[in-house]
Amino acid sequence: MDRLTATPIAPVFLSLICEFIGAEIESEKNIEVSSFCTLFPGERGGLSFLANSSYTKLLKKTKASVVIMNHDQECPEGFTGICIRVDESYSTWGILLQKFGEHYPWTHEPIAESAEIHPSAKIAHGVTIGNNCVIGENVILHPNVTIYPNTKIEKNSILHSGVVIGADGFGFAAPNPTETKLRKICHIGHVIINDNVEIGANSCVDRAVVGATVIGSGTKLDNLCQIGHNVQIGVGCVLAGQVGIAGSTKIGNYVQVGGQAGFAGHIEIGDFVKIGAQSGVHKNVGKGKIIMGSPAIDAAVFRRKFAASNMKK
Amino acid sequence: MDRLTATPIAPVFLSLICEFIGAEIESEKNIEVSSFCTLFPGERGGLSFLANSSYTKLLKKTKASVVIMNHDQECPEGFTGICIRVDESYSTWGILLQKFGEHYPWTHEPIAESAEIHPSAKIAHGVTIGNNCVIGENVILHPNVTIYPNTKIEKNSILHSGVVIGADGFGFAAPNPTETKLRKICHIGHVIINDNVEIGANSCVDRAVVGATVIGSGTKLDNLCQIGHNVQIGVGCVLAGQVGIAGSTKIGNYVQVGGQAGFAGHIEIGDFVKIGAQSGVHKNVGKGKIIMGSPAIDAAVFRRKFAASNMKK
Amino acid sequence: MDRLTATPIAPVFLSLICEFIGAEIESEKNIEVSSFCTLFPGERGGLSFLANSSYTKLLKKTKASVVIMNHDQECPEGFTGICIRVDESYSTWGILLQKFGEHYPWTHEPIAESAEIHPSAKIAHGVTIGNNCVIGENVILHPNVTIYPNTKIEKNSILHSGVVIGADGFGFAAPNPTETKLRKICHIGHVIINDNVEIGANSCVDRAVVGATVIGSGTKLDNLCQIGHNVQIGVGCVLAGQVGIAGSTKIGNYVQVGGQAGFAGHIEIGDFVKIGAQSGVHKNVGKGKIIMGSPAIDAAVFRRKFAASNMKK
Repeated sequence: MDRLTATPIAPVFLSLICEFIGAEIESEKNIEVSSFCTLFPGERGGLSFLANSSYTKLLKKTKASVVIMNHDQECPEGFTGICIRVDESYSTWGILLQKFGEHYPWTHEPIAESAEIHPSAKIAHGVTIGNNCVIGENVILHPNVTIYPNTKIEKNSILHSGVVIGADGFGFAAPNPTETKLRKICHIGHVIINDNVEIGANSCVDRAVVGATVIGSGTKLDNLCQIGHNVQIGVGCVLAGQVGIAGSTKIGNYVQVGGQAGFAGHIEIGDFVKIGAQSGVHKNVGKGKIIMGSPAIDAAVFRRKFAASNMKK
Repeated sequence: MDRLTATPIAPVFLSLICEFIGAEIESEKNIEVSSFCTLFPGERGGLSFLANSSYTKLLKKTKASVVIMNHDQECPEGFTGICIRVDESYSTWGILLQKFGEHYPWTHEPIAESAEIHPSAKIAHGVTIGNNCVIGENVILHPNVTIYPNTKIEKNSILHSGVVIGADGFGFAAPNPTETKLRKICHIGHVIINDNVEIGANSCVDRAVVGATVIGSGTKLDNLCQIGHNVQIGVGCVLAGQVGIAGSTKIGNYVQVGGQAGFAGHIEIGDFVKIGAQSGVHKNVGKGKIIMGSPAIDAAVFRRKFAASNMKK
Repeated sequence: MDRLTATPIAPVFLSLICEFIGAEIESEKNIEVSSFCTLFPGERGGLSFLANSSYTKLLKKTKASVVIMNHDQECPEGFTGICIRVDESYSTWGILLQKFGEHYPWTHEPIAESAEIHPSAKIAHGVTIGNNCVIGENVILHPNVTIYPNTKIEKNSILHSGVVIGADGFGFAAPNPTETKLRKICHIGHVIINDNVEIGANSCVDRAVVGATVIGSGTKLDNLCQIGHNVQIGVGCVLAGQVGIAGSTKIGNYVQVGGQAGFAGHIEIGDFVKIGAQSGVHKNVGKGKIIMGSPAIDAAVFRRKFAASNMKK
């Protein structure tokens, strides 16, 4: 369950996948697909997709064996995998996740029999734990916590009441430009909460589309935080209340985040970064920087501007 | 249950209502009141109120048969209903909702027997469903969802763990200027979640004072969103995490809202509007506009100002 | 249970405490410690700590009998208590709270037998109430509310679904500069919700480290609010949705707070203050002021600047 950027599926021939979505492949390219994966790094046997053309350059580096892309997208030299053409790749990706991914319904019991729960873990009233979960040594789950299937919570971690781990992330595709009805992108990934993590009341950590959303060892989240799908947070971070992090963003180690700050998706925050309360972080932030404001800028500059603006009043 | 701006009550003579609140009516004006309604559009047999004088102009258009208003408020020509004078109309409105509205206590069972639940709906552990609810075909309610009485959830909608639908909205009246103790405005309205909606973990949709709070068909809300009483959201909207919408605001169709954005109450947002993350939307926004900032302005202007301000540093 | 700034412990000799943490005291200074308390006001028999040197001046005023502080911190003249020196006082404070404070595990029943619940209180399904709680007359707890041990909820208060009262506050110590692993500060305090309070769905009120977090009589909180440890909110306040208040901040009486506003920790807000939506309140605010913006400034100045900045576009 610990793969971070890919989720295994029951192996299936690519020809079958293509038949299902009405795409074509040359017969000599028929291989067995054994996982769905993110475009980078990708893995052998893995199927991924390209939707946003700004990621085209990743095609040169991906190890994915198959990439679904639109008819009009360029496939750069250096791409070593198999390229499958469709009308709307993101939507097709969603259809494939739905069809070939593994799905876990809730069980009749509140705590699934298949869940592997360490005898020293303390599970309070009203906790629901889905299939295929692993709950480690000394973990404390306070009342009314929900652990969706396929979640791993490592030793000594504490989840306060109302925490929801592993709900579907927020992903929807518009099948085509004239069709406004959104298609749900099925989430077959999972969540890993490493050891010694504490998560405040009513906070949410969404499951990954494929691979894992990860909260690193010793990291502490306050109440009412929102952690999107495929986010990776490093070790020893401290996030104050009501912080929100959009999908696929990567937070380094020992990062400190003030209350109500928000992060755009698909960005990277370096180690030891400090972020002021209510900041809006919209792009990558280098190691050790201190930023604030919305949009966030260097904290010293922010303070200077704020002081100057108040002198002019 | 589908009336959006009025809630029926057991019919009662206006004379009885006036006696209860110590107000006077001329005997020839005695009619039967059959609903409590918003001032606009209002409906025949409906009783409404005027508190904020900026809505006085609606009196010319309302179809409400009775309007409670303060002694010192003007009643414009063109108003065709019956005007009942009191000391503090909002507070009196609250008293009437409490006295004559229908209230539904929680039942002894977690899922009320009177709830109409389609056999294909999937109801997980820890879900509570109140009296008079309707849960449609293929609806999925994840663990620990709470559905207050009188809520309708249409087919194919998905509510993630910890979602609360139909809690009382945030309305309190100060009975008079020297009395600081707030009086709760009783909420007798309901919530309608249309078909194909998805609502993220721990989000809240409050019930209407009268009429309905509505989430339109195919609209998707991310985690930890707050939707106030009497808000109406159109079809095909996408709201990212931690968005908050104050009471009675109307969101058009296909509106996209970034994370942590907030909306004032009683405003209207046109179709196809796009709103940046952390924006503060304080007034009406016309169709198709793209805005950001707090307070929100045209996005292109916002970006230009932000760029200019960073050059001056 | 009503002490606001101290929590009693089973009396223990200071010599024993010092032995446990490896600190030294002169034998004539051995006293009995009967509570853990905040530095101000402190109380006789109470043990507190000094971590941030900006609070050194409180040492002259504290009534605490014992204060743990770092080796290099100055102890001003006028301090009448006993000073115990350690390497890292905040971390040591955490160790003592853990060792000598009283801890209440969840009981096997969802509603602890030791909880004192008024027969007129209405407790819905899925509610969990811990040991030593007091639930007053006519209190309404909607489904899936969690009341951690040692909480008091006074008469006529209403808690909507998913509310969490008394989860541990957000406090962690870094034992030393080279050690990045954070140590949890154990919370032995409690929460007091005074009478006639209403708390919106999925809001959280954290328990105090020592003493109490308090929500004053008649105060109303909307959905998804976050109230940190040791916060004290006065009477008759109104907090809109998604407001967050960091630890130890004190809000006066009749304060009105717009949606998504945030407060830094350890500040004081005067009576009758009004705070705009999305404001960031980072310092003390005097009685009756009206402020907005992030960082928040005088509302009239904010509006003037915003108007001027839009003219320059």
